[in-house]
Amino acid sequence: MPRNQQILLDNRPQGEATAANFKLVANDTPALKDGEVLVRHHYLSLDPYMRGRMNESKSYAQPQPLGEVMIGGTVGEVVESRHPKFAAGDQVVGMGGWQEYSVVDGNVPGMLRKVDTTHVPLSYYLGAVGMPGVTAWYGLVKIIEPKAGETVVVSAATGAVGSTYAALAKARGCRVVGIAGGPEKCKYAVEELGFDACIDYREHPDVKTMGKALKEACPKGIDGYFENVGGYILDAVLLRTNAFARIAVCGMIAGYDGQPLPLQNPALILVNRLKVQGFIVSEHMEVWPQALQELGTLVAQGKLKPRESIAQGIASAPEAFLGLLKGKNFGKQLVKLT
Amino acid sequence: MPRNQQILLDNRPQGEATAANFKLVANDTPALKDGEVLVRHHYLSLDPYMRGRMNESKSYAQPQPLGEVMIGGTVGEVVESRHPKFAAGDQVVGMGGWQEYSVVDGNVPGMLRKVDTTHVPLSYYLGAVGMPGVTAWYGLVKIIEPKAGETVVVSAATGAVGSTYAALAKARGCRVVGIAGGPEKCKYAVEELGFDACIDYREHPDVKTMGKALKEACPKGIDGYFENVGGYILDAVLLRTNAFARIAVCGMIAGYDGQPLPLQNPALILVNRLKVQGFIVSEHMEVWPQALQELGTLVAQGKLKPRESIAQGIASAPEAFLGLLKGKNFGKQLVKLT
Repeated sequence: MPRNQQILLDNRPQGEATAANFKLVANDTPALKDGEVLVRHHYLSLDPYMRGRMNESKSYAQPQPLGEVMIGGTVGEVVESRHPKFAAGDQVVGMGGWQEYSVVDGNVPGMLRKVDTTHVPLSYYLGAVGMPGVTAWYGLVKIIEPKAGETVVVSAATGAVGSTYAALAKARGCRVVGIAGGPEKCKYAVEELGFDACIDYREHPDVKTMGKALKEACPKGIDGYFENVGGYILDAVLLRTNAFARIAVCGMIAGYDGQPLPLQNPALILVNRLKVQGFIVSEHMEVWPQALQELGTLVAQGKLKPRESIAQGIASAPEAFLGLLKGKNFGKQLVKLT
Repeated sequence: MPRNQQILLDNRPQGEATAANFKLVANDTPALKDGEVLVRHHYLSLDPYMRGRMNESKSYAQPQPLGEVMIGGTVGEVVESRHPKFAAGDQVVGMGGWQEYSVVDGNVPGMLRKVDTTHVPLSYYLGAVGMPGVTAWYGLVKIIEPKAGETVVVSAATGAVGSTYAALAKARGCRVVGIAGGPEKCKYAVEELGFDACIDYREHPDVKTMGKALKEACPKGIDGYFENVGGYILDAVLLRTNAFARIAVCGMIAGYDGQPLPLQNPALILVNRLKVQGFIVSEHMEVWPQALQELGTLVAQGKLKPRESIAQGIASAPEAFLGLLKGKNFGKQLVKLT
């Protein structure tokens, strides 16, 4: 049986998450029982939602149990199968966690899905054609519901969600404005990802300067916003919203560590008759087929070329994850495990 | 021509509104032109939205112009008509403003509406069967969309909106919990207005104690909230929301004076997948006929008996209005002008 390196949640963060919250262990993979499938992971996905799971407090999902393998999306290849639907060599996407191999019960619906890599690279099924892509799709298509000519904004613009959002919004005839950290990311957003403009939040570190930058980038105001960050950027966006603007709330990275960040002027929800709606994409599985179809087509047509930030080896996952929380990644953060 | 006493906005508030912002004047009513109608007002409605109009800043509506009669809803009787659709003696509702008489162009659609007082007292057309009633209806029926068995909450429970909300929610099989100021109002809410429970915010002046009171009054959590107040009450409500709860944002009295009040933990919008939506009832005229029909029926059936707080004479309007902003009224605040 192959040796399987795993990363466990060893203890919960007190405030900021650190590498000491994690623990690397190694075990033999167990022998397969009837109906089980052994998958060798090629890539592990790192995503902001994992930070929320590290806390003990009530959230929309169960906390990550201590002493168990960190949850996470994975793509890989079947190396052994005792389930008739899967065969060695199949390429699959699943929730294998922070480890090199996983044993999956092939009878549980949705645990493992075969994917086609003819037109879409395997790793994209963790990003633009996976959970982050469907997240962008749901927020834009189902909550923001943009009309051609409207202006829509997204924070974390060069990440997996942001870059997919841009492609989807351009396909709908919108002006799409990104917010990202640093001139390199902003340049990339405009030149490679199709954003009409991108604002460097490091150059605009408060509500006032961010508001001014948004005014310039969104001369007709903001009709839709996809919230990935929280904090002063949301405050600045709300001040530039048009009447009846829609805000899809998907992440609030800035608030995961420590104290919650207040929203400074909630009265704008009334003044501008906003709809502000939180969502979790895994609760809307009914839209996945439609969303994945559009996303796969955009990739195959070359209209969606998401950038990836790839760390090497399972041992690098904690540092890569902590970097992601601080915006150090550039594009979809993955860990290559082969 | 009868003498017409009027109240003008003389100057804008610096922080808190005061009586010195208003000015009482008297003028003769002008002679009617063809198509015009002279209405003698019986009641003037005082409503929180008027405070927003007193500010110069951009809001959803134009600011109230300085030196002009304060806007406001009125009911009264036609005393003279040069329009074929109206005759002396007709009972009408309109936006006559803070004055004893108004001259209305009968040709402008929606400016003046004849009402039937067989089953509904005239003054109710300014409250439960008027704008506040439709406001409660829209927030509950169109935004909160409650199901039988759900728990819905409203602040300013004994006001025109709150009391109508209770009757509408009970008709839909909900548990309805009010928040009001003082034991007398809370007793009235439960004994006369049909609330299942009512929380005295004066006894619970911070997020922690209010949260505890909400937990007791809403043992199954909160599925819908109609926001009339803002501030710490909204913070406490958000902490008790169930997944997929809906918040209709209609007023934020607490924030009208001076600085905006922050929302302490907007991440709850994501954690509990909330929908928070602001609205202004005058932008949804398409629902008024349906709403007024249900509201009139509830009154005729004795299921909606809103309380009124009546000040006497136009000169009393400013003080009554300032009292309303401080929660001193008990029920729908009116000024009797005859």
